[in-house]
Amino acid sequence: MSASEPTRVGVLTVSDRASRGEYEDRGGPAVADFLQRRFAPGFARHDRLVPDDPDAISAALVELCDTVGCSLVITTGGTGPSPRDLTPEATRVVLERELPGFGERMRSISVDRVPTAILSRQIAGIRGRSLIVNLPGSPKAIEDCLEAVIPAIPHCLELLGAPPLPLSDGSTPLRHE
Amino acid sequence: MSASEPTRVGVLTVSDRASRGEYEDRGGPAVADFLQRRFAPGFARHDRLVPDDPDAISAALVELCDTVGCSLVITTGGTGPSPRDLTPEATRVVLERELPGFGERMRSISVDRVPTAILSRQIAGIRGRSLIVNLPGSPKAIEDCLEAVIPAIPHCLELLGAPPLPLSDGSTPLRHE
Amino acid sequence: MSASEPTRVGVLTVSDRASRGEYEDRGGPAVADFLQRRFAPGFARHDRLVPDDPDAISAALVELCDTVGCSLVITTGGTGPSPRDLTPEATRVVLERELPGFGERMRSISVDRVPTAILSRQIAGIRGRSLIVNLPGSPKAIEDCLEAVIPAIPHCLELLGAPPLPLSDGSTPLRHE
Repeated sequence: MSASEPTRVGVLTVSDRASRGEYEDRGGPAVADFLQRRFAPGFARHDRLVPDDPDAISAALVELCDTVGCSLVITTGGTGPSPRDLTPEATRVVLERELPGFGERMRSISVDRVPTAILSRQIAGIRGRSLIVNLPGSPKAIEDCLEAVIPAIPHCLELLGAPPLPLSDGSTPLRHE
Repeated sequence: MSASEPTRVGVLTVSDRASRGEYEDRGGPAVADFLQRRFAPGFARHDRLVPDDPDAISAALVELCDTVGCSLVITTGGTGPSPRDLTPEATRVVLERELPGFGERMRSISVDRVPTAILSRQIAGIRGRSLIVNLPGSPKAIEDCLEAVIPAIPHCLELLGAPPLPLSDGSTPLRHE
Repeated sequence: MSASEPTRVGVLTVSDRASRGEYEDRGGPAVADFLQRRFAPGFARHDRLVPDDPDAISAALVELCDTVGCSLVITTGGTGPSPRDLTPEATRVVLERELPGFGERMRSISVDRVPTAILSRQIAGIRGRSLIVNLPGSPKAIEDCLEAVIPAIPHCLELLGAPPLPLSDGSTPLRHE
C-alpha cells in the first residue's frame, strides 16, 4: 500500500434479519457514526453485512483484512449466548493472536450499569497488521464498549506497523514506556 | 419436555473427600440454599457428587444437561490451582461456547476483599440449551460469586430458549436492547 | 529436592535487542529488585535472557521449571501486540493449566491510569509445581502488575506443594476457607 493511500477501516454487521432485509441494520450505522466522530477525518470506511453464519463471518473478516487492507475491523452483532450468536468463534479462527484485554474491559465497563453485560462474549485480536474488535449489536452497548477501548486503538495500530488512525481530539493516552 | 414440566437445575459438587464420605459436603448445600432463596419457587433441583476426576466431572455434566434436561448446572469445587483441581478443564470439554464474563466478574468482585481470588479458575458456558457455571468450593466464596452473576442468569436462559427461571424478588435487570 | 534447599525463583527477560546486547535489559533487573524487596530473604534467583523467539522462550521456561526446579518463574517482555511479541503463546504451550485471574487483574489495575494497558496480553498458569507469570517489559508496568498479584503468590505455591516463599512483611492475605 503506498503511503498516500488512506487508512482503511472495516465495519462488519452480523445479523440474520438485517441481511435478509427484514430489519434495518442499526448496529453498523451506530459503529460508523462513532468512528466518524472519534477518529480524525481521512480514513476510508468499508461496510459489510453478513448473516449469523460462521463461514460468512470469517470470510468477510479475511476479505476486509487481507484484500481490502483494513487496519481496523469492527464487527457488531452475534456476541450473545443465543444459539445463532457465533461471531466470537468465527473471529477466533481468523486471528493469529488474541488481545483479551478488550473483551475484559468492555464487559467490566458495562456490567455495573447493565448486569447482563456478562453475557457478552466479544473478543479482539490481531491478524497480520489488522486489529479486529467484536462489539455487541445494540447501539447503546456499542457506544459504551467502543468508548471503553478506543483510546488504545491508535497505539495498537502503531505497534502493528499499520497506517496511522489518530483520535479526532488529538489526544494520545498515557502509556507505559 | 412438555410445558408443564418444571425448570430443572443441577448442583454438582466436585470433591474427592466428600465423595469418599471423609468430609461433609458444604459446597453443594451452600449452592442449593442460595438458589432456593434467590430463584422463585417451582424449579426442580438435581444434586450430584463426584470426585475430582475429570472424566467423572464431564460425565456428570453431560448427564445433567442432556439426560436430566437441566437449564442451569452449577458446579462447586475443584477450581483452584491444586494439582487435583480440574473442574474448569473438565467443564471446557463439554461446553460448546464459553461465556468469559462470568469468571471475570466473579474474580473481579471477590479480589478487592480476598486477594487470593485471582487463583480461582472458574469458567462458564453453554451446552445446547443449558448454562453451566463453575463456582469455588468455599461457602463464603459461593455466596459472593453467585450474587455477582445471578441477575444475568434468567435472561441468559431466555436467550437459550430454556424454560423460565425467574428471580424470587421478581426483578429483571437492565439490559441493552 | 531436600527440605534444606532454598526456594528457587526464575526471572526470564524476553527481548531481541537486549539479547543481542544492543540495549541494556531494564525489565529483568526491575523484576529482580521487586522480588528482593517483597519476598522474605532466603530464596535463590535464577536469571535468564532470551530473544523474542517462541521456541527459545518455551525452552527457557521448561529449563527453569523442570531442571532448575523454580517454584515461581516471572517473565518480562513480549506481551504486547507487536509482531514479535509472542511470550504469551510461548508460555501457553508449556502450561498445564491457566490461571486467568492474573492477567485479568494486572490489566484491570493498570487500565484506569494507562488506557493502553488493554493491549497487554500476559497470561499465567501452572506447570507441575511451578507458577509461571508473564509481565510486560516496562519497569513502571512491572511494578504495577507485580504489586497487583503478589499477595496471592505464596498461597498459590502452598497449594501447589512447592517450597515456601513468604512475603517480606509477613502478611498473609485473607482467603476463602
